[in-house]
Amino acid sequence: MTRASLASATNPAIDDAHALMRGTARLLYDLGINAIPEFTLPCGRRADLAGLGPKGEIVIVEIKSGIADFRTDQKWPDYFDWCDRFFFAVSDRFPAAVLPEQTGLIVADAFGAGIVRESPVDKLAPARRKALTLRFARHAAERLLRV
Amino acid sequence: MTRASLASATNPAIDDAHALMRGTARLLYDLGINAIPEFTLPCGRRADLAGLGPKGEIVIVEIKSGIADFRTDQKWPDYFDWCDRFFFAVSDRFPAAVLPEQTGLIVADAFGAGIVRESPVDKLAPARRKALTLRFARHAAERLLRV
Repeated sequence: MTRASLASATNPAIDDAHALMRGTARLLYDLGINAIPEFTLPCGRRADLAGLGPKGEIVIVEIKSGIADFRTDQKWPDYFDWCDRFFFAVSDRFPAAVLPEQTGLIVADAFGAGIVRESPVDKLAPARRKALTLRFARHAAERLLRV
Repeated sequence: MTRASLASATNPAIDDAHALMRGTARLLYDLGINAIPEFTLPCGRRADLAGLGPKGEIVIVEIKSGIADFRTDQKWPDYFDWCDRFFFAVSDRFPAAVLPEQTGLIVADAFGAGIVRESPVDKLAPARRKALTLRFARHAAERLLRV
């Protein structure tokens, strides 16, 4: 896949977030993590991708389509409260050095992705994990009913 | 909706199970229970509809398209091990008197349904509820990825 084909239709300087999301969801799936897009957290923020591993591990991935998208998001540390592992996912033209070291890093295109830097693991408290898993399950089921 | 229009395309004597499932899923949704079709349980059986309530209550509904469908199913009590409440869902032409008293009863058509008899509540053990909720969540997310 060329960089050009990953570009957003409206602005070639930024990446197509949906394409990155698709590639990242496939990577997660290959890792045994079943993810859903646009999962609204109890704090009101919406995670671009939220995934559940076979043992209940919760992973959140925030897609960044370009440097501006990252710079205007000051609240990404909020995600740490709602997952065991947190990743940014970007294309290979994103200047990854600006992304904080304490987050995982996924480099994606529309067809797949790879983990470039693992995320530190910060385990959720059991009660929060339980509440989030139920929320995830009900959310995914509701979404499925609509399609 | 007429009885005829609920009949299966291949055999007018039996009901269209998918239509009943749709009507029943709507009822559950109206009750705040988010359901998914064809949920495979750890025992290997596949529940026609499995739903999750806002507090994590697990409901299983078995659709019966006709009396033969019920008579050939000797294993329905197995479902009791995997839910808090269990219902049969049938159309209004099904002879509901044959259905066991210790199960809930839903009468459905393609557009909606009603609870005719509530199910007794038999609460799952916490560890099993946790495992089932995770299974449900991952299953729904995987299904969503495919659509």
